[in-house]
Amino acid sequence: MTYELYYWDGLQGRGEFVRLALEEAGAEYVEVARGDARDGLGTGAMMAVMDSKSEPCPPFAPPFLKDGDLLIAQTANILFYLGARHGLAPAVESLRYVVNGLQLTIADMVTEAHDTHHPLASNLYYEDQKDAAKVRAHDFIDHRIPKFMHYFERVLKQNPAGDTYLVGDALTYVDLSMFQLIDGLYYAFPRAMKTFPKHYPRLAALHDAVLERPRIDAYLDSDRRIAHNEACIFRHYPELDKDTR
Amino acid sequence: MTYELYYWDGLQGRGEFVRLALEEAGAEYVEVARGDARDGLGTGAMMAVMDSKSEPCPPFAPPFLKDGDLLIAQTANILFYLGARHGLAPAVESLRYVVNGLQLTIADMVTEAHDTHHPLASNLYYEDQKDAAKVRAHDFIDHRIPKFMHYFERVLKQNPAGDTYLVGDALTYVDLSMFQLIDGLYYAFPRAMKTFPKHYPRLAALHDAVLERPRIDAYLDSDRRIAHNEACIFRHYPELDKDTR
Repeated sequence: MTYELYYWDGLQGRGEFVRLALEEAGAEYVEVARGDARDGLGTGAMMAVMDSKSEPCPPFAPPFLKDGDLLIAQTANILFYLGARHGLAPAVESLRYVVNGLQLTIADMVTEAHDTHHPLASNLYYEDQKDAAKVRAHDFIDHRIPKFMHYFERVLKQNPAGDTYLVGDALTYVDLSMFQLIDGLYYAFPRAMKTFPKHYPRLAALHDAVLERPRIDAYLDSDRRIAHNEACIFRHYPELDKDTR
Repeated sequence: MTYELYYWDGLQGRGEFVRLALEEAGAEYVEVARGDARDGLGTGAMMAVMDSKSEPCPPFAPPFLKDGDLLIAQTANILFYLGARHGLAPAVESLRYVVNGLQLTIADMVTEAHDTHHPLASNLYYEDQKDAAKVRAHDFIDHRIPKFMHYFERVLKQNPAGDTYLVGDALTYVDLSMFQLIDGLYYAFPRAMKTFPKHYPRLAALHDAVLERPRIDAYLDSDRRIAHNEACIFRHYPELDKDTR
């Protein structure tokens, strides 16, 4: 069965966390919003599902995934579903809740990364909230990146199965998501992230190890990978970045 | 087995979504941080778990739940775990993902409700970000409450099993969480919420129906329920509230 992935065309966004899992799994999927309207695809086809008056439980927002009749919304929820089906979750059921807890903590940080450029309202342009964005971005760099990353580094360090993966002794989807989070932060805040490998060597090694996985490497080189850009969660606005120790 | 629930003493916060599920389930649980240090409980006992250097995967933040050796972090994750074990999730497995997707959408709105009073930094006092808070709170009232609540009302309306519960034909934990979200908004924004039952009759009915459930009613009357207050996510700052149509 080919999955249908629904996410905005033109940006990595939260969809990217799902794409990385699908690519690592070698799963077949169609990106509905990036397809052609002549094939019944495109953004219109995505909006039709969202606006449907007959869908039993319509999604609030992309990304969402269709697997046959089942429509699954919310990034962490999609990954929870896919992980178990594609060997990207621990075999031990109880550890799947550990993975999901970490994934939701990544999701919290992703939301905070977004809010660095939109602290007052997602309805307003960045240009209309630049001063507030600078306050929030610098707080994010000074307090939130260290707090979250110190925590994730600790999770690697305390993993009883070794410090290569966040949970257990094999790759799970949360490792892919951690790569994407770090990768996005490198793009958005290159000055603040200069000292990242020094402070968080295990996380930096995890990031680099994911980059070298054959399927991820092939995906990142393909035109399926959309480049980082300023329509996304991770935006590079130099005035929000700063050096750190 | 008695669950151990870990959450900050003195506020409802995200812990309340878990408490409501435990109470409706009639499950036995201990509130670790609210207990006495002489019994090995209290906030110190909670911090000891968070700061533990031997915990296989320590939690980033409360709430977290211990069920024997298993430590589960993140509100939606705890509820996913409890729901299946206590008849508060659909019997059909695929619908559990639907419930989880809605729960995560509620979680997103809860974060936005928090950020109405802390748009610039959770490290700063409210008093130091009042102007920004007013902009964000009014955007929340004008745009985000309608967007989310119109959506949740639609979920009730389109539920093939009827409009009494969000998913299926029986109560699940996401209905309890929806009650709590609406209840918190009533507390924080009484002026903005005056027209809520007019615009969202199904959600208002769901809220009232949860209030009347015997175990919830008994819980809300007990001293286990902490009153709404300004240490919480849902804070009543009159200057952030406003009338709506």
